[in-house]
Amino acid sequence: MTYCIGLNLDEGLVLASDSRTNAGVDHIRRAGKLRVFAQDGDRVVVTLSAGNLSLTQNVLNLIEHRARHETDRVGILNAQSMFQVAQVVGDAMREIRARDESYLRDSGIDPSGSFIVGGQIRGEAPRLFLVYSEGNFIESSRETPFFQSGEIKFGKPILDRVITSRTDLVTATKCALVSFDSTIRSNLSVGPPIDLLVYCRDSLQVQIQRRYEDGDAYLQSIRSHWNESMRRAVADLPLPDWA
Amino acid sequence: MTYCIGLNLDEGLVLASDSRTNAGVDHIRRAGKLRVFAQDGDRVVVTLSAGNLSLTQNVLNLIEHRARHETDRVGILNAQSMFQVAQVVGDAMREIRARDESYLRDSGIDPSGSFIVGGQIRGEAPRLFLVYSEGNFIESSRETPFFQSGEIKFGKPILDRVITSRTDLVTATKCALVSFDSTIRSNLSVGPPIDLLVYCRDSLQVQIQRRYEDGDAYLQSIRSHWNESMRRAVADLPLPDWA
Repeated sequence: MTYCIGLNLDEGLVLASDSRTNAGVDHIRRAGKLRVFAQDGDRVVVTLSAGNLSLTQNVLNLIEHRARHETDRVGILNAQSMFQVAQVVGDAMREIRARDESYLRDSGIDPSGSFIVGGQIRGEAPRLFLVYSEGNFIESSRETPFFQSGEIKFGKPILDRVITSRTDLVTATKCALVSFDSTIRSNLSVGPPIDLLVYCRDSLQVQIQRRYEDGDAYLQSIRSHWNESMRRAVADLPLPDWA
Repeated sequence: MTYCIGLNLDEGLVLASDSRTNAGVDHIRRAGKLRVFAQDGDRVVVTLSAGNLSLTQNVLNLIEHRARHETDRVGILNAQSMFQVAQVVGDAMREIRARDESYLRDSGIDPSGSFIVGGQIRGEAPRLFLVYSEGNFIESSRETPFFQSGEIKFGKPILDRVITSRTDLVTATKCALVSFDSTIRSNLSVGPPIDLLVYCRDSLQVQIQRRYEDGDAYLQSIRSHWNESMRRAVADLPLPDWA
């Protein structure tokens, strides 16, 4: 399984993913799910992959191949807007699915996948899209400033309670890491390392990118502080009438 | 959809359910999912239903009918242990499924359901079971002192972080209500009223039972306190190295 979050906030973007794939507990391997396509001063585009690994990898391979070798067509490095970038990702998804899907279905394998695509291209504000397995996509809004993919439920309540468009990048990052911790605790198939990228609006370059390995001191401190805060928060709640 | 929680703690049992059924947003109705079978001084048995409503209702109807009219067989009011009670529920589940299942499947209707069954029979400690749709069941343990059914994921992290067998009934109740609030916030198909029963070990009678309607002042205060605590807890987390 997988867990990815993308947040589009007034101050910029927060994007994070786990790195676990093939979640059968006896066959766990890592695969980075956060990919950056950047040209300093011009654009930063980040993709977060979820779903069938051969699909999502080859969508990115195709996009990368074309950006390098077919520079006359609209690609991830010359698209004029993030809207066009989402189209490029959706088109590549359809192309790879068309190539592989019938073979996968013949073997009973789920051929689906999705991408969270966030970034900024010079001349636009930062934007965030969720590209579905069918190649169509939706964009975040001020009312719905975040997308999740994969194993989304365990980590959703903390985002629902805290995140708005006005949340600052530091608070949003801490909130995203709590969301990951909640998911990892409750579901064995989501696991560290956690890849994090924090993009500051209008910087047009990647300044903050971290990989938090299992046992990372900061992750540990987030977890222990949060556990303690939860216990204290429950203790501080008003008593029921019968207590 | 449905959300039910049963907790088996040193001090007793906490059992709670929502009351929403037929979760299509344009066709919402209520149905109590918490049912009590009690004989003061002898036993308190509580069932929490999830799944196909005709299945779970008729399992309880069958159990009740037999307890009243077929008193020579082992039933919910004369079973000698909660283990036997779980068997009675599992057997009734199989009987109703055998009667209805092929008709439901012919119409593409999911015929499955499950019960959380908690209670105490004189001479035993309180016990808690999860009876699956197939009629088999598992029992809680000191390591796993709670069961959930229905839409379980949104509300699981807070239980995972706070609940142990030693958690007192008041704390556990507050925690259960937070778990419901998280689920209701994130999933339209789970909704108030919330039925709650708190059973004090060795009391052998129902002393604390509440129905929290939508807009209930205590539920509201839990929600607003919790939202505030979450925001403060995130603010109090240690800063990332780049902040």
